[in-house]
Amino acid sequence: MLPLERALTMDDYMPLSRGNRDKDQKTLNQARISSSFPLARFRVLTGGVEHKERCTQHGLLLRLNTYKHFLSYTPIIGQFFSKDVASGHSILFAPRLSAEYAVWLGEIKPLSYFKERYMVDMTHYVDEIAEVLYDLGGQSGKQLLFLLHGLNTDSNNFSRPADFKDIENFETDLLTLHPILTECRVFKSNLEVDLIQYANDVSSEAHIEVMRRIGAGMKEYQLESIFLHHIYMHGGCRHCSYTCICATGENSAVLHYGHAAAPNDRTLKEGDIALFDMGAEYHFYGSDITCSFPVNGKFTKHQAVIYNAVLRAHDTVIKSISSGVSWIDMHKLAEKTILQSLKTVRIIVGDIDEMMEMRLGAVFLPHGIGHLLGIDTHDPGGYTQGMERPKVPGLKSLRTIRELREGMVITVEPGCYFIDALLNPALEDPTTSRFFNVEELDRYKNFGGIRIESDVVVTLNGCRNLTNVPREIWEIEAVMAGEPWPLKQKQTPL
Amino acid sequence: MLPLERALTMDDYMPLSRGNRDKDQKTLNQARISSSFPLARFRVLTGGVEHKERCTQHGLLLRLNTYKHFLSYTPIIGQFFSKDVASGHSILFAPRLSAEYAVWLGEIKPLSYFKERYMVDMTHYVDEIAEVLYDLGGQSGKQLLFLLHGLNTDSNNFSRPADFKDIENFETDLLTLHPILTECRVFKSNLEVDLIQYANDVSSEAHIEVMRRIGAGMKEYQLESIFLHHIYMHGGCRHCSYTCICATGENSAVLHYGHAAAPNDRTLKEGDIALFDMGAEYHFYGSDITCSFPVNGKFTKHQAVIYNAVLRAHDTVIKSISSGVSWIDMHKLAEKTILQSLKTVRIIVGDIDEMMEMRLGAVFLPHGIGHLLGIDTHDPGGYTQGMERPKVPGLKSLRTIRELREGMVITVEPGCYFIDALLNPALEDPTTSRFFNVEELDRYKNFGGIRIESDVVVTLNGCRNLTNVPREIWEIEAVMAGEPWPLKQKQTPL
Ligand SMILES: [Mn+2]
Ligand SMILES: [Mn+2]
Repeated sequence: MLPLERALTMDDYMPLSRGNRDKDQKTLNQARISSSFPLARFRVLTGGVEHKERCTQHGLLLRLNTYKHFLSYTPIIGQFFSKDVASGHSILFAPRLSAEYAVWLGEIKPLSYFKERYMVDMTHYVDEIAEVLYDLGGQSGKQLLFLLHGLNTDSNNFSRPADFKDIENFETDLLTLHPILTECRVFKSNLEVDLIQYANDVSSEAHIEVMRRIGAGMKEYQLESIFLHHIYMHGGCRHCSYTCICATGENSAVLHYGHAAAPNDRTLKEGDIALFDMGAEYHFYGSDITCSFPVNGKFTKHQAVIYNAVLRAHDTVIKSISSGVSWIDMHKLAEKTILQSLKTVRIIVGDIDEMMEMRLGAVFLPHGIGHLLGIDTHDPGGYTQGMERPKVPGLKSLRTIRELREGMVITVEPGCYFIDALLNPALEDPTTSRFFNVEELDRYKNFGGIRIESDVVVTLNGCRNLTNVPREIWEIEAVMAGEPWPLKQKQTPL
Repeated sequence: MLPLERALTMDDYMPLSRGNRDKDQKTLNQARISSSFPLARFRVLTGGVEHKERCTQHGLLLRLNTYKHFLSYTPIIGQFFSKDVASGHSILFAPRLSAEYAVWLGEIKPLSYFKERYMVDMTHYVDEIAEVLYDLGGQSGKQLLFLLHGLNTDSNNFSRPADFKDIENFETDLLTLHPILTECRVFKSNLEVDLIQYANDVSSEAHIEVMRRIGAGMKEYQLESIFLHHIYMHGGCRHCSYTCICATGENSAVLHYGHAAAPNDRTLKEGDIALFDMGAEYHFYGSDITCSFPVNGKFTKHQAVIYNAVLRAHDTVIKSISSGVSWIDMHKLAEKTILQSLKTVRIIVGDIDEMMEMRLGAVFLPHGIGHLLGIDTHDPGGYTQGMERPKVPGLKSLRTIRELREGMVITVEPGCYFIDALLNPALEDPTTSRFFNVEELDRYKNFGGIRIESDVVVTLNGCRNLTNVPREIWEIEAVMAGEPWPLKQKQTPL
């Protein structure tokens, strides 16, 4: 199956963390120079608070603060990371482990191991933080620590600032670091893109495996299981970037289906559409891929109509992306492309510009056209300070409204859904009801929805699609019928 | 493969929750009668706070407070459950969901749906709690609410008491409810045992699948993946009770191997021992099973010696369990059985009673012989009020020291490990060093360890083993060679 050798090993990953740490050197130095503070300054980031995930005792699947992962890939609980802003010298503070640790959790590594493994300049124990930083600061009086504390504009959660014994003997700055690091995370290094590419490769293969094995009578979660097994068994990916959405039939119109109260437990029926949104994570970097296809491997006429409407939006946006393009424009482009297709088949009637004005697109496409992707599935930095979230339907769901720039990794995920909770108010509202051809629309009752999602990295003059799955209808039907992917010979639609 | 029909459906599960709710009726009524408080009293339990598990935004794999699961299986965020102590009448308070919910998370069900589905007497919205409870209380003045707040003796976490608008208009009692509910959880109903049996059936089959497919050159996590896939694909189990421990070679001596800093990533070698501790969870009820076997399917002489030492302890404890037996005695019995075996092969020498006195068993078996099992892998109630944790090695690791009683579900998991962090101090201490035959012990350097773990339900005169995997060496070797399980014809060892 998938050659594991293609993956970065832990050893490849270490320069990545170091590269990430260097990204902020320039901006942090700027902040230092423009401040009135003398000499040695440090930042300190807290390590992970253990995540008690599944059971009161076995809280073993650790997930640290993602900013911490960005700077230092060390799966060690209670660890601190510090860097001298002026010199760039880094220190890792590791917890002093008891003999109990060796019995229950494994070998206790010496500090020298961490220094070499994680490519830092010094290692000390956590209980030495205050002392070490003070010694390094020399005679310069109180030192300034930049601590990480800021709002994730996507989740509305605040990151927790570092705290250690005697921190009150330091000056602390809670404002400077978070926006700088966030901006560093927005623009990916080549090694970061390599990891996202690998997660995409593994996920793409797993999606194809799911397409080949799907059939009426199965449970949705069995396809989730096939995906999870493929990415772990053949790709070494223990985690997904998010809970798998394995929506079939009318569930495909529930955008975040698959959660605990709707746990992918429907039985597939002949004629169903399947919308599978699943992405593997590798060394903390994610992927986010959606494939939509018929459960029985053959698109009906109606399924083909809506699928092609979404595919055209997907392809048009990808063709239009390049450095300097506004993401709001990309969202509107997707909306407009879909509305045009729906008009062609007379589900809607009237003037497209008027529809855009009335935000009719948001009835069929209520979510944003894409989001930044990285260590977080919805990576931070989508809104910079002062940017205000749009208020109107559709646009208000955008997780970023920035101009695209080289090095951003972003998802392109147009969709078209028939959701009663959105269609019914639009049909009742006289300002929008006039656009609907109710007779034709009724044929799509219980259709569900289609979403097509790829991950792209923005380049100067375009973008590169990291996702590699069959997208054209004839490609999907061929692969589901057993053809190898990529297809041996280019086929064309009938 | 495994017939899914064997599993309880959601519909079967609803009477289970109702049964769980009735368990406390008698004790709570006792508390009511013995108090001086007039008339209507209620308890209110908070529903789940969403568990932000893997990603800043997609926090979809919900895990509610396990006491809440015990009383009411409803995967609904922000929900409250209340019961009139005198009459037993139950009320479910569901959150009022916005139209947004329908778009993102699914259909909004009417209150009548919850009433029928979850077998409660009334349903209302969360924002009506104070009003509804007051109306029901009549003219009796302030009402008393029993809230859940208590220490989990296993995790040392406190459960969070319910909170709602205008709660200050009620009297609240934080002390009564937690110990009563905990005691209800210790003794399983037949339906609860059915679920634990199902989780055991699925996990037993998956362990066998892993045994059949293991081989040198594989990665430990690939076996984890095979297990996870089997329980989900063929058993409908989305979760495990705990993080899989797939330890091979020297990792088998790390008791909680498999966590983020030791993520089952070793490559298997010819001649390795494998210690796999993995258990599926079904409708929140868990299983906890450990199998130890050679990677190549054939026990070496040394592996057989230690394996049989542990198996004898496992079988002896299971034969000795019945209502009224002390769990501390069972732990000591396992220790003694293992020490006797180690003495037979001259790894240790001297008087067994003296060894027991010096707690030598804890050098080889540093964890407890088992723990209560239920909704939590380490189910609460192991220590009742006033019980003190033993201080001496081995016994201090016990998660319960109670007398066994009918209806308890408990794991039996003796082990024998060669852990330098424990052996070296024991070899240096003159009071224990005299028991070791260093020459023979040295042959087991880098051996790792063996654990054998089954789940049993205690009956009046014995116990029933819920786990069904090959245990005898000849059984394991036959199954790993491809024989069906259970074996067609009873084989005997050569
Ligand atoms: Mn996405
Ligand atoms: Mn256990």
